[in-house]
Amino acid sequence: MIRICLILFTNIIFLAPSIGQDEAALFVKEIYDHTLNKGQCDKWLSFLSDTIGGRLTGSENAKTAVNYTYGIMSDLPVLDKVWKQPCIVPKWIRGDAEEVTIAWSGGQKSSLDALSLGNSIGTGPAGIQGSVIEVHGLDTLKIMGPQLLKDKIVFFNRPMDPTRQSTGHAYGEAVDQRVHGAARASAEGAAAVLVRSVTLLQDDLPHTGVQSYVPGVKPIPSLAISTNAANKLSALLQDNKVTAHIKNNPQVLDSVHSHNVIGEIKGSEFPDEIILIGGHLDSWDVGGGAHDDGAGCVHALQVIQTLQDLGYRSRRTIRCVMFMNEENGLGGGKAYARASNAAGEYHLAAIESDSGGFTPRGFGCSAHPSVFKPFLANLQKFDEFLEPYDLYLKAGGGGADINPLKSQKGLLIGFKPDNSRYFDFHHTSADVMKNVNVRELRMGAAAITALVYLIDQNGL
Amino acid sequence: MIRICLILFTNIIFLAPSIGQDEAALFVKEIYDHTLNKGQCDKWLSFLSDTIGGRLTGSENAKTAVNYTYGIMSDLPVLDKVWKQPCIVPKWIRGDAEEVTIAWSGGQKSSLDALSLGNSIGTGPAGIQGSVIEVHGLDTLKIMGPQLLKDKIVFFNRPMDPTRQSTGHAYGEAVDQRVHGAARASAEGAAAVLVRSVTLLQDDLPHTGVQSYVPGVKPIPSLAISTNAANKLSALLQDNKVTAHIKNNPQVLDSVHSHNVIGEIKGSEFPDEIILIGGHLDSWDVGGGAHDDGAGCVHALQVIQTLQDLGYRSRRTIRCVMFMNEENGLGGGKAYARASNAAGEYHLAAIESDSGGFTPRGFGCSAHPSVFKPFLANLQKFDEFLEPYDLYLKAGGGGADINPLKSQKGLLIGFKPDNSRYFDFHHTSADVMKNVNVRELRMGAAAITALVYLIDQNGL
Repeated sequence: MIRICLILFTNIIFLAPSIGQDEAALFVKEIYDHTLNKGQCDKWLSFLSDTIGGRLTGSENAKTAVNYTYGIMSDLPVLDKVWKQPCIVPKWIRGDAEEVTIAWSGGQKSSLDALSLGNSIGTGPAGIQGSVIEVHGLDTLKIMGPQLLKDKIVFFNRPMDPTRQSTGHAYGEAVDQRVHGAARASAEGAAAVLVRSVTLLQDDLPHTGVQSYVPGVKPIPSLAISTNAANKLSALLQDNKVTAHIKNNPQVLDSVHSHNVIGEIKGSEFPDEIILIGGHLDSWDVGGGAHDDGAGCVHALQVIQTLQDLGYRSRRTIRCVMFMNEENGLGGGKAYARASNAAGEYHLAAIESDSGGFTPRGFGCSAHPSVFKPFLANLQKFDEFLEPYDLYLKAGGGGADINPLKSQKGLLIGFKPDNSRYFDFHHTSADVMKNVNVRELRMGAAAITALVYLIDQNGL
Repeated sequence: MIRICLILFTNIIFLAPSIGQDEAALFVKEIYDHTLNKGQCDKWLSFLSDTIGGRLTGSENAKTAVNYTYGIMSDLPVLDKVWKQPCIVPKWIRGDAEEVTIAWSGGQKSSLDALSLGNSIGTGPAGIQGSVIEVHGLDTLKIMGPQLLKDKIVFFNRPMDPTRQSTGHAYGEAVDQRVHGAARASAEGAAAVLVRSVTLLQDDLPHTGVQSYVPGVKPIPSLAISTNAANKLSALLQDNKVTAHIKNNPQVLDSVHSHNVIGEIKGSEFPDEIILIGGHLDSWDVGGGAHDDGAGCVHALQVIQTLQDLGYRSRRTIRCVMFMNEENGLGGGKAYARASNAAGEYHLAAIESDSGGFTPRGFGCSAHPSVFKPFLANLQKFDEFLEPYDLYLKAGGGGADINPLKSQKGLLIGFKPDNSRYFDFHHTSADVMKNVNVRELRMGAAAITALVYLIDQNGL
């Protein structure tokens, strides 16, 4: 009975073409109350992360996740349309042998916690053996050249900078070693690379992640080792010649068909102005992809369910997208933009949540330079609604899956939760539900729903 | 060598009586860099929480913590003076028997996870048995009266409101049951009370905390039960008569002598304007008091060490205070204010950190009404330095230990970290170092140091 009254009440408010400030503030409060009290996002995330598990692009688990989220959307009657959008994605499998053993003076040996990096080739059954040489950046490789690096195992050990205010920036500064290390070291004759895990935490967990080869340069095996292993190896190299024996057997297979999963509420007044909310459904194969990026997916689903449960009728078209293949190819994001451009669509705003399920801090945005200035000039109209929830909306942000939409000249928005702990779990076996705080996850969903609602009501 | 250069460099800047904006921003960055790179606060906290352990007022552990932090301060040569300030504090001990067993239809029985509340008396060796009656607020007790409550065991089960933006507000709304439940139920003839743990988490951990008797009303035993236990008991009460048998043996002993621990850097220009930073050294006996409030203590110590290591020469007097007995009496805070007032001191600003070691969000402040308006009008001058670190400074906040200083008409400031998880651990056996994130703890110390520095340079 209470529920029915609520729906009638909110419909009365929002049949009017635009609303007053008090009503808007009231509805944002209702969004928070509903999400915190009755959110389902944690239930969905638990299933994605801990029941389905790691959802590497092209895997059976990824297919299961497509069907699972398609099923959730199909059960949300507020969505006028739910569909799977085809895309072509790479397929890489880890294999079952990942061993890094180091040996130093007097025949001493130790094994290191390691994970093959995404898209890495394997060593072959005999493995690869070589002297280890430590470097701290890509630029030094060219200076060292083949005379120092030929047949060596190059160990990239530049740590993340703990003094950066944003751990994301610190990650961005360190991750070049992981992404380009193998190709750059191979160009100087190296046999394989080991990369310090890109995290601020000092522990035994290796962090995987994508790495890229370069056409014309021989691909060589590439593995991450834990930060504890990296410190140990570095300490040994101070006084010893260290050799490493590496064995792994991942496989790069032919590309396969996969899908984005999309649900849409048609706008009642401006159906041609799309507001997108999304996360990426794929994850790395280790762990459950709970923060990266199951959280973003269930945030987006929760937006739809909350708006539905509150009886909200949107003025613009609201589209919820589970992107496939963010981690190692962006096949889903590119396919989405291609189809959207071909249909002549306009995304007024696209919001991506791909920074974890932590306490929301706000949103960062960007746009095509020709339109960004007027957008920026208008952002402060959202402050009065967001500030009571300690949220900001400011320049600087977007998302890997939504960036291909930039040519449509709408606003690209990245959801920014607290980033302290994100890289503690990122791309590891620890990215599972027990490391997600339910309240923080729901707070994120509420924040995004509030922004979707405000943009839907007021435009940009 | 680098260290020596740094000290010379910063001294050159800060020998000038006031500084430019660029220099101030640069020094705030140095504070962050130093704290994040070389902070010792996590090492200190680990010792306080996991080596010393729970530091209930009047206990041997509390005495050890006094000596430990006195030792740390004594090893910081920048402090011109370190002393232990006497205070009189209550002494309560938990005892070794805490049992709550419920029985319902057909002789079924179950034991509930429970903890005696602070200052509670015991049941005596035979325990107390009675029918359980559930209530959701203090006000209903008077309406129910002795005819319903005589000899009953009153079960307070109003949960924290998950929809409050601030978990602190939600805590404040629910905690009256724990603090005043026993006295109010006893006034209507009840034999004992059980109180739902004041937390948003649904789990098996009982949360202790202070409760207060009222002179002239018979004290009765008072225990917290976990939220899972509370839900189970409530569900049983829907269809059953439930009796509970409670046994505990805490003891209220005579008050004892204890100490605040204080260190002071004498101001070089305005020695009579004191800037205080502090936390409380005592904690509950279960767990290690890591977030509550070891974190606040090591924040304050870190401020001093960072300023020392950066070679900073303060214009005003900076005082670091470990308060005793915040949890069950405020003996330390009151003694500090008494001594300060007697000496005619003026605290320009007092900052308390007592909300945990989580990611900093900002600071909330308050003051005597006669001076608050001019303070508020000036706060925005700090924004340009705090905003790059996603910190705010706004009205609303203070701290239990510093509030007695209000009559000195300075600014009282509460450090506000993210509050999502605080009440997950608060007053439980889980408030230990493994639930503290080192980066977040250090970020808090850096934020507080930055504010101390800015107030020291610019006044209010």
